[in-house]
Amino acid sequence: MEDWALMLLIILGGVLGLAFVGYLAYFILRESEGNAKMKEISRAIRQGAMAFLRREFTTLTVFTVIIFIVLAVFIEPRPFVAIGYLAGTVTSALAGWLGMNIATKANVRTAHAALHSWAMGLKIAFSSGAVMGFCVVGLGLLGLAIISFIWDASNPDNFHVWLGFAFGASSVALFLRAGGGIFTKSADVGADLVGKVEHGIPEDDPRNPAVIADNVGDNVGDVAGMGSDLYESYVSAIAASMVLGVLALDLTTGMFMPLCLAAAGIVVSIIGALSVRPKEIKALDFEKQVARAHATMNRGVYVSNILMIIAALFIIWGFTGEFSLFWALISGLVAGFLIAQATEYYTSADRNPTKKIARAAQSGSAVVIIEGIATGMISTVIPVLLVVIATILAYIFGDLLGIAIAAMGMLINLGMLLAMDCYGPIADNSAGIAEMAGLGKDVRERCEALDAVGNTTAALGKGFAIASAALASLAWLATYFEVAEIEIASLTSVDVIAGVFIGGMLTFVFSALAMKGVSDGGYAIVNEVRRQFGEIKGLMEGKAKPDYVACVNIATNRALRSMLIPGVLVIIVPLILGFTLGPESVAGLLAGALLTGFLMAVMMANSGGAWDNAKKYIESGVHGGKGSDAHKASVCGDTVGDPFKDTAGPSLNILIKLVGKVAVIFGPVFVVSIAL
Amino acid sequence: MEDWALMLLIILGGVLGLAFVGYLAYFILRESEGNAKMKEISRAIRQGAMAFLRREFTTLTVFTVIIFIVLAVFIEPRPFVAIGYLAGTVTSALAGWLGMNIATKANVRTAHAALHSWAMGLKIAFSSGAVMGFCVVGLGLLGLAIISFIWDASNPDNFHVWLGFAFGASSVALFLRAGGGIFTKSADVGADLVGKVEHGIPEDDPRNPAVIADNVGDNVGDVAGMGSDLYESYVSAIAASMVLGVLALDLTTGMFMPLCLAAAGIVVSIIGALSVRPKEIKALDFEKQVARAHATMNRGVYVSNILMIIAALFIIWGFTGEFSLFWALISGLVAGFLIAQATEYYTSADRNPTKKIARAAQSGSAVVIIEGIATGMISTVIPVLLVVIATILAYIFGDLLGIAIAAMGMLINLGMLLAMDCYGPIADNSAGIAEMAGLGKDVRERCEALDAVGNTTAALGKGFAIASAALASLAWLATYFEVAEIEIASLTSVDVIAGVFIGGMLTFVFSALAMKGVSDGGYAIVNEVRRQFGEIKGLMEGKAKPDYVACVNIATNRALRSMLIPGVLVIIVPLILGFTLGPESVAGLLAGALLTGFLMAVMMANSGGAWDNAKKYIESGVHGGKGSDAHKASVCGDTVGDPFKDTAGPSLNILIKLVGKVAVIFGPVFVVSIAL
Repeated sequence: MEDWALMLLIILGGVLGLAFVGYLAYFILRESEGNAKMKEISRAIRQGAMAFLRREFTTLTVFTVIIFIVLAVFIEPRPFVAIGYLAGTVTSALAGWLGMNIATKANVRTAHAALHSWAMGLKIAFSSGAVMGFCVVGLGLLGLAIISFIWDASNPDNFHVWLGFAFGASSVALFLRAGGGIFTKSADVGADLVGKVEHGIPEDDPRNPAVIADNVGDNVGDVAGMGSDLYESYVSAIAASMVLGVLALDLTTGMFMPLCLAAAGIVVSIIGALSVRPKEIKALDFEKQVARAHATMNRGVYVSNILMIIAALFIIWGFTGEFSLFWALISGLVAGFLIAQATEYYTSADRNPTKKIARAAQSGSAVVIIEGIATGMISTVIPVLLVVIATILAYIFGDLLGIAIAAMGMLINLGMLLAMDCYGPIADNSAGIAEMAGLGKDVRERCEALDAVGNTTAALGKGFAIASAALASLAWLATYFEVAEIEIASLTSVDVIAGVFIGGMLTFVFSALAMKGVSDGGYAIVNEVRRQFGEIKGLMEGKAKPDYVACVNIATNRALRSMLIPGVLVIIVPLILGFTLGPESVAGLLAGALLTGFLMAVMMANSGGAWDNAKKYIESGVHGGKGSDAHKASVCGDTVGDPFKDTAGPSLNILIKLVGKVAVIFGPVFVVSIAL
Repeated sequence: MEDWALMLLIILGGVLGLAFVGYLAYFILRESEGNAKMKEISRAIRQGAMAFLRREFTTLTVFTVIIFIVLAVFIEPRPFVAIGYLAGTVTSALAGWLGMNIATKANVRTAHAALHSWAMGLKIAFSSGAVMGFCVVGLGLLGLAIISFIWDASNPDNFHVWLGFAFGASSVALFLRAGGGIFTKSADVGADLVGKVEHGIPEDDPRNPAVIADNVGDNVGDVAGMGSDLYESYVSAIAASMVLGVLALDLTTGMFMPLCLAAAGIVVSIIGALSVRPKEIKALDFEKQVARAHATMNRGVYVSNILMIIAALFIIWGFTGEFSLFWALISGLVAGFLIAQATEYYTSADRNPTKKIARAAQSGSAVVIIEGIATGMISTVIPVLLVVIATILAYIFGDLLGIAIAAMGMLINLGMLLAMDCYGPIADNSAGIAEMAGLGKDVRERCEALDAVGNTTAALGKGFAIASAALASLAWLATYFEVAEIEIASLTSVDVIAGVFIGGMLTFVFSALAMKGVSDGGYAIVNEVRRQFGEIKGLMEGKAKPDYVACVNIATNRALRSMLIPGVLVIIVPLILGFTLGPESVAGLLAGALLTGFLMAVMMANSGGAWDNAKKYIESGVHGGKGSDAHKASVCGDTVGDPFKDTAGPSLNILIKLVGKVAVIFGPVFVVSIAL
């Protein structure tokens, strides 16, 4: 096929993704928002979420301008890398904004639909998740395609533009995922400590001044944050495949094959998403609702996976005339699938690890913590082995390019997978709105069943996000070797060892600062909530309204402030190392950060998920049930787990990818500076 | 000087160390054991400790015989490596046995001496710590010297014997440090959960059936365990210096210079220890006692450090005719000193990090845990940077040999430093005996002041043990490169990356299993204590005696059982990797294990120390003092911190050193197997 025809097909794939977003948005928005109270609550959440995004984007703009100027002045080919960076930033921000906008409109509609129909509630929440999913893949593919198209494709230096694009996506992820993670848990911890613990009012009670901030947090952390995190992995995997493909194969194949795979991924994901057709359940059977919701969504995953395997076979054979890269892609796809299963095993309430934590809760909170951390640490074994095996296989089948293709294999169905991930927070929000608006018992139960499924899909999503970040970062490490022209970065060199140590340390500092951000932010929210309960007369009696905005603002400010030092560190440290100890030392840094970041992220996500479900398991009536000492101990575990799984863990995904970007973008400069 | 004269001097140094041990033992044993009750308690602790050692040594013997046969059959030069291994095992076990034997006799004498004299109590506890310290350095030096002497020194393959010796020391450390760590915390957690929490009886109450096991734990974990841990680092650093010295310089210099430095270290440590002369304090002023005890022991450190610097200058100049290796040695010595200061900053009750944790306790146990973990993670920055800087400097001054010499610099005054470390648990035991024997208020206060100092020196000791393990392991990594003839282990190779990941994962599994050992063991002890309280009539009223031995046996069995899988893993995994992916992959494994192990060990030790002191800070009356909600939250932190700092953290020291030993011993076999 001609290049222009291929490009047209690819762009068509991206456009198709966005058209599907339009269709989904139309489907969601034509539903009713319900009564006045529901509208009011939903508006408060949306306003809070949008206020957070505006603040984030303002700071992000300053940040982007600075980096843009640095890139435009220093990084060849000037100013195209800078333009790629800008495009990556804008498309990622746009995806986050669109996805969250719809999510904050879908939550109330999910609750309203659940008034009459469980299936309709599920459908709306899932569709809203799919909006995020297809914004990510559509904009990601279109962005990469269009910048390749505008910029002269015949120049091999072209690929630096793609690298700039991925770097831009990384910057947005830093703000939305790390910042969002701090926001959401500050609000959560703050709301719970005063509301639940001090005043004994239920979760999501509208009298609690932090309750809107808490619901905003679900959207900014788990929808926009998760979306930007995977947007970055997605474009990184494609960009790395393109760069390594151009270097290993020819320009046309290297550039078009990954884009065609991605376009096919969008098409099969749309088919997968369309095959998610929940059947109504009339009786209010919690277990049955949960099981059917799982089965319904899993169907979409299976359909898209199978179609993708077939499509990939044809595309790869068509471009290369052989199947070896196909096996590389499959190794990533299978590893991603199995890692999700392992995550499920370690964090589900009906499996042994979580049950053991629940049992340990009988001996008090300290034992719960020890058991949870130990479980999280052991849960790293399977993901590490799977990533190692996938990497080795991918390398055997396709050298360094194989690793990038394996990362693509993991991420190729992202539209469908992200729809499932982002379904969770929307269902969670709908349950919150049902509670706050005082809707009937039936609808609350339906929303809670939807929420319960969301907790599992969110845990799987986290496992998947980490695994894909690890594989994308390995692909990016390979890209760094090529771009910085490093043939050897040997552990026999002290500089490399120094890099390894500093990379590992960086991840510890980064996640520690994120956690401290949560405890500082939570403390500030606690004080604000206490102040409002003390100063606003009639608040406790429900006669006066709390000042929700104040809490949202505090959490936003804290999140931005807490991100500053870790964000700067992650950009500055690789630069310092590169200019002093040289590019090989930076390779050590990437490896050290990747290793430690991956291990800690898996541990934190799984400890957190297991604690959460151990608490829920006890609440189901085991070991004394709600209110028992074991339950109190499990609440302690869950509270520690919150910043583990929703702040520190996810921000490590960002860290390992962002250091890689910095290294690749500035790599050529280190090489020159050390040579001088 | 002639070789035989040098060897005589070196052996004289070792003998001097052991003679000093004899003098100290004589000094301790001529003190009175006090009244019948004290004698009885002390005997129970000693019997428990010795029973533990006997069981450990029985299992160790089986383990040693198996490894001995493997080495004798497979590892060249046969059977000398196996003989070196045996010698390392026996000397390390002997050092542990001697040190613990005296420690369990000194505890009661410290308590008795404190009846009349604070200074005498300090002197006895310190002398007993010095017994452990000088057993380690004396036997370590003598062992290495004598096996060099017996085995033909003119054969360059000689050095494999020294490697075998260090491997033997590693095996003992695995049993005493990892096993002892599980023992001590199982007993501690078990004793506290039933005694303090369920029955409300004070710590160290003789009615608690687990109280003797708890006191035994102090001896087996913190005296014998700490001793064997540092015995291993000490002989590893010397052996690595000898091997790298023989390869980089000539046989005589390479072999004799490290041994001479070690002999000089013993002499200056003796002078340092002798300069620890506490002056009596008549008034019972807690602060003053603590301050003076610190000052008194620090004097010994300063004296020995200064003398050592002078001695090293002459020895290194005498052997090499230049000063570059002297600077390598100094970089290690200074890094060790500064890391201890950083540890002190992060864990002392009068510094900000610990105070912040205490403040966080006001918001409940979950916030204490988050803050403590974050603090531990941040506390890795200084140790990592110092180890990196010391390594780079050492490399600049002396190439790979420089790194080994830097490790020696950190460990050269071990006799004096270990005396300070092991003083802690003896003071702790004496306070326990004073409580159990119902001695007067004065003596209890004196013992508690001695104990408070012990907590700080123990925390410093942990920081030092980790830092020295890291540097010794780096030296050992360098040795591995030489022995396995690896010139390049590049991160661009997938096999090396696979090794890095698996090494990191191994440390997570190892410490998770150690922690699970504690929670399982603690659970078993809890059940036993509950059984005794239920079945033994009159126990609570003090009319019947509990069955102390049962608890000791349970803790011993659990410790041995929990060690089995991690112990086997750490030996098997490097072998599997070496035989499948090759020796470069094992280099990756060592680097990955070293990085993750070092970071986690520092984090766990410092989080644990900070939680412990945050609790003590609150107990001093801050934030509501004892019994307040903040205090309860801080107790939760302390209980999580116990297995962090005393089990999982220290066993990581063992792990990172042991994988290095396995790699070095079997390295030449991988090379051959891969070449075939």
